Amino acid sequence: MSHNTFGHLFRFTTWGESHGPAIGCVIDGCPPLLPLTESDIQSYLDQRRPGTSRFVTQRREPDAVKILSGVFEGQTTGTPISLLIENTDQRSRDYSEIKDRYRPGHADMSYDAKYGIRDYRGGGRSSARETANRVAAGAIARKVLGSDIQIRGAVVQIGEKKINPDNWDWDQTSQNPFWCPDEAAAKEWEGYLDSVRKDGNSVGALLEIRASGVPAGWGAPIYGKLDSDLAMGMMSINAAKGVEIGAGFATAGMSGVENADEMRAGENGPDFLTNKSGGILGGISNGDEIICRVAIKPTSSMMQKTRSVTSKGEEIDVQTKGRHDPCVGIRGVPVAEAMMAVVLADHKLRHRGQVG
Amino acid sequence: MSHNTFGHLFRFTTWGESHGPAIGCVIDGCPPLLPLTESDIQSYLDQRRPGTSRFVTQRREPDAVKILSGVFEGQTTGTPISLLIENTDQRSRDYSEIKDRYRPGHADMSYDAKYGIRDYRGGGRSSARETANRVAAGAIARKVLGSDIQIRGAVVQIGEKKINPDNWDWDQTSQNPFWCPDEAAAKEWEGYLDSVRKDGNSVGALLEIRASGVPAGWGAPIYGKLDSDLAMGMMSINAAKGVEIGAGFATAGMSGVENADEMRAGENGPDFLTNKSGGILGGISNGDEIICRVAIKPTSSMMQKTRSVTSKGEEIDVQTKGRHDPCVGIRGVPVAEAMMAVVLADHKLRHRGQVG
Amino acid sequence: MSHNTFGHLFRFTTWGESHGPAIGCVIDGCPPLLPLTESDIQSYLDQRRPGTSRFVTQRREPDAVKILSGVFEGQTTGTPISLLIENTDQRSRDYSEIKDRYRPGHADMSYDAKYGIRDYRGGGRSSARETANRVAAGAIARKVLGSDIQIRGAVVQIGEKKINPDNWDWDQTSQNPFWCPDEAAAKEWEGYLDSVRKDGNSVGALLEIRASGVPAGWGAPIYGKLDSDLAMGMMSINAAKGVEIGAGFATAGMSGVENADEMRAGENGPDFLTNKSGGILGGISNGDEIICRVAIKPTSSMMQKTRSVTSKGEEIDVQTKGRHDPCVGIRGVPVAEAMMAVVLADHKLRHRGQVG
Amino acid sequence: MSHNTFGHLFRFTTWGESHGPAIGCVIDGCPPLLPLTESDIQSYLDQRRPGTSRFVTQRREPDAVKILSGVFEGQTTGTPISLLIENTDQRSRDYSEIKDRYRPGHADMSYDAKYGIRDYRGGGRSSARETANRVAAGAIARKVLGSDIQIRGAVVQIGEKKINPDNWDWDQTSQNPFWCPDEAAAKEWEGYLDSVRKDGNSVGALLEIRASGVPAGWGAPIYGKLDSDLAMGMMSINAAKGVEIGAGFATAGMSGVENADEMRAGENGPDFLTNKSGGILGGISNGDEIICRVAIKPTSSMMQKTRSVTSKGEEIDVQTKGRHDPCVGIRGVPVAEAMMAVVLADHKLRHRGQVG
Repeated sequence: MSHNTFGHLFRFTTWGESHGPAIGCVIDGCPPLLPLTESDIQSYLDQRRPGTSRFVTQRREPDAVKILSGVFEGQTTGTPISLLIENTDQRSRDYSEIKDRYRPGHADMSYDAKYGIRDYRGGGRSSARETANRVAAGAIARKVLGSDIQIRGAVVQIGEKKINPDNWDWDQTSQNPFWCPDEAAAKEWEGYLDSVRKDGNSVGALLEIRASGVPAGWGAPIYGKLDSDLAMGMMSINAAKGVEIGAGFATAGMSGVENADEMRAGENGPDFLTNKSGGILGGISNGDEIICRVAIKPTSSMMQKTRSVTSKGEEIDVQTKGRHDPCVGIRGVPVAEAMMAVVLADHKLRHRGQVG
Repeated sequence: MSHNTFGHLFRFTTWGESHGPAIGCVIDGCPPLLPLTESDIQSYLDQRRPGTSRFVTQRREPDAVKILSGVFEGQTTGTPISLLIENTDQRSRDYSEIKDRYRPGHADMSYDAKYGIRDYRGGGRSSARETANRVAAGAIARKVLGSDIQIRGAVVQIGEKKINPDNWDWDQTSQNPFWCPDEAAAKEWEGYLDSVRKDGNSVGALLEIRASGVPAGWGAPIYGKLDSDLAMGMMSINAAKGVEIGAGFATAGMSGVENADEMRAGENGPDFLTNKSGGILGGISNGDEIICRVAIKPTSSMMQKTRSVTSKGEEIDVQTKGRHDPCVGIRGVPVAEAMMAVVLADHKLRHRGQVG
Repeated sequence: MSHNTFGHLFRFTTWGESHGPAIGCVIDGCPPLLPLTESDIQSYLDQRRPGTSRFVTQRREPDAVKILSGVFEGQTTGTPISLLIENTDQRSRDYSEIKDRYRPGHADMSYDAKYGIRDYRGGGRSSARETANRVAAGAIARKVLGSDIQIRGAVVQIGEKKINPDNWDWDQTSQNPFWCPDEAAAKEWEGYLDSVRKDGNSVGALLEIRASGVPAGWGAPIYGKLDSDLAMGMMSINAAKGVEIGAGFATAGMSGVENADEMRAGENGPDFLTNKSGGILGGISNGDEIICRVAIKPTSSMMQKTRSVTSKGEEIDVQTKGRHDPCVGIRGVPVAEAMMAVVLADHKLRHRGQVG
Repeated sequence: MSHNTFGHLFRFTTWGESHGPAIGCVIDGCPPLLPLTESDIQSYLDQRRPGTSRFVTQRREPDAVKILSGVFEGQTTGTPISLLIENTDQRSRDYSEIKDRYRPGHADMSYDAKYGIRDYRGGGRSSARETANRVAAGAIARKVLGSDIQIRGAVVQIGEKKINPDNWDWDQTSQNPFWCPDEAAAKEWEGYLDSVRKDGNSVGALLEIRASGVPAGWGAPIYGKLDSDLAMGMMSINAAKGVEIGAGFATAGMSGVENADEMRAGENGPDFLTNKSGGILGGISNGDEIICRVAIKPTSSMMQKTRSVTSKGEEIDVQTKGRHDPCVGIRGVPVAEAMMAVVLADHKLRHRGQVG
């Protein structure tokens, strides 16, 4: 039991706050003999990095990762891999004004209630910065999974703007600053997000993460279900408020006939004619694509005023002046991809452990 | 790490299949000196029991629970509590016809892929019968939480029929066979579900579970988030396909201003003017009502024919003749309530352990 | 984290007290497709059973095990295996006299201090009866390990009487009621233990457990060391007060030259000329025989008077009248063998999970 | 389940090898609001530091610890505490000669068998250097325990030289380079160890660790026994080959009458007249002093030649030329004290979690 560790056989532990000297994580249980360099990890971190477009926070962190242990002569050794990312953009400033203010949507108030203390300089552990560690761990998880398994993510909705699923083109996700798989929607989103940003407002987002090439048989029936571990992992992402697998919430409105994924004989076992199940049956992968969607709430930091209180009970108006993401969900894509990767890597090893 | 255990300090391990001699669970870590009798548990089991109306399976199981350990002279002793429920309604029948058939939506195929063996007489561990154990564990979790915390659940949608939230009346949930909080909707659902049942079809459902009286401060920021543990717990329920907290998926479409739960000074800390967050900020309870919704897919067992294959790759049509729930989500309410209870009980103890 | 579970990938959870209706355990993570019947388990339970000679307790329990789940058509399914053993020899008696008395060496006082309640009718969870569960779990662990790995145990000392290691003959361990590998010592022990018993006294014992056929590579360097898991497992046995691996405590008095296990080239990797290390280097098996010794203190229940106090602080003399083992260590052999088996089975799966 | 984490509620994860850029650990679950500075930790690290006398390795590492997270304005925040210690004494050298050689008593051969790769420049994870992390974690654990609990350790035997227990004086342990509580023995040990060192040989040691002030009630009956967790913790120390609690292995030779810790009425519950149990009954502390002894084998690195093989199966003679401890057990005292501290801190929180 731990509050800062995720996974079982492939597991990682993260530490650090946005305003300390560094953040980092320790990956434990990684198989030996996997080729691994810092640049393998860095390429994924660069996808999540702030400052890459006007639609994400202007905080400038190079997020350069260092491998401190567990890799020898370019290969994993099977011992814990310690990764460290220095915090370089810590502007010194005066926090006296904000240290007692509870910002709506932030964890200020709940941290105080729990611990009686909090590092008021940033979001503490709830800072989006923590997610860099997940991305780093996910890069290693991908090595564990091998190249037959492909994990990809997209933003399918920001605020009131949804993509048209018929336009889905994976190649588009790297062609716009939104991870948007719909070229037309991406164009529209530019203007939309600009107006949100100028308004000092923010918007939520809906992410869709898919993993193809996962063999049938990973997961377990009840409390080690592949989908419940995905749910836990995705919901552990900052600002996540919902998770669904396959047809998800839509299944509540379906009939059994509509929801059934019929099968026909395939070359390697059954072929599913549809994928409402999102590739998981009874908690175990069925060989079809794993599909997961995550709802990310709007950034709580806004330039618009909201009513709040201080820790001493004084009523105030709160307004965030600093740099922030108008739609934090955008940078959530590499994070959610990473969580998919670590859940799958863990279940690969767990399955191998039990079944061989 | 375990595939059949849930929770950390308050934890339970379940075992058993629907067609074995019994099912059961072991609750570990329960505080001592709590008054506990079999009837305390039985009253919750009776809520989940099959055969209570024409809208749930006609399988008749008394589901009588026995306490085999951990209770002495009417009080918990702090040692593991073993609960046992005998399976009494196992009709002997010929399974030769179905043992090789993969039923769409069931875990037949994925079990075979994983284990190379499965108990084809029922759903194995994925049988809804396993959930009786959760309800039993949940009854004990409620004792751990005490009477100040109230956990209630409702069905807010079955198939295409939603309740009108304005009609919400908790008292109604015990007045109809659907856990429906909207008297008008409940009436409509009767005819609707009758037609679904006569059609040999089934429908999904949407559950909403609320916990009031939870103090601020339970949970943890990152991988021990109250909401990620709820997500894991709820998604571990058979047939669950989605979980959301507070405003959930709707937040993807909201602006920051719409989503902000503003605060005013209250008698015991801040009062939240709205509860989009579902009572959880940064993974930690904020003192407001905890709100969680769970999407339950339609029962996969249907009398309508669906196309499938056998384990040998022969193409077949599948049709379930046995007794089944037209809307398995209905009986999911006490189960989801129980998962809320066990997650909260675990976090109560975890919080007390770390913070005192 | 759990107080009643042992192991990680192969893990078991036990429950039950000596004076409840039954005891039992749940084995989780067992690989599928292993042949398993109740008699496979029963044969090991019969070795531990009370009442088999005048040197062990005369409590008569058939200890008949029932498999309640996880086995289908004679094979494990990969789902949790629930085992149940009914308590049949619960004589009804008057406990009023003893319920408040702290018996020296028993956990009466520490249970009260911890829980504020205890089942005063027996030893609670500390009853030797709990160990039947371990033996049952160990029988399944042996299936996981396969027939190439042989686990055997012996008593090498009772009280002041030690065996002569030069006389060691494994075949002897089943020829006398003491698991003694030294025929001459076994004869001497009969008279010795008779006198201890007639004296109303008891004696301690030293157990030695060996596992041969364990391949090199199981275990992990630091906190998953094979030897630290063995230490935890053996020390978790009731009345165990010490554990050592290989040359153990004697190494404290050795020089490096004396302690070095030199190597010569062997057919399958290095051959070790000696085995001071007990088959474990850096927490990882080296292919040599795993050797572990466990010290078991004398039974605390004695007919001789000892000075004690009541829970109310009254000074008293305590004397146990009931049936007891004059040397509880004797029945500890199948228990310690079982703990060796479960530790090795767990590490077999863990190794396979991480390294493949 | 993890291979590099220790503890449950108070837990730490270590990483790093002796020849990488740094080692470190992450402490999770630490209660908030404890005052903590780097110097609090440093003072314990300095006790373990190499190069402090001619009887320990001449490797010179300042072992300066940095706190990277989890502490704010001098207090713990309840979030993970990351500690980092840079490796500064990495002489560049040619390893080509030794990289394929298996040194007797080292884990070279078992690492290769497990992982197929190892960092041949040092002992990998089995390097004594890893123990600096434990000492650092132990310093924080002492904060959790508070000043009422005192943990002290001593060396009671090196090689064939034992202390005279009648001379025990805790004040002596800081007056000699051996943590020896017997002034006369310490004098003798100087000459003895000098001769061992000049001989190019090494010797084992026996450590005794005591904790006073531990309240009755910590621990749990079966698999969370305080003594089994101590056994696991102590055996996880490099070179440990045996652990015993209280009278330990001597109890195997005792009668029940000799072993009984009789009780008389005391001011705060029972007073034990003796402490054979080492302060633990049924896995739970009884309020008396916790006593644990650990056997540490002789350093495997020696200047004397031993017969061995290479990874390719060539027979060779091995001789260690580098700097090493003639009696590594000496520096084990602060390490074993730290393990006592972390086990107790974990059980303090676990007890508080379950029982309140």
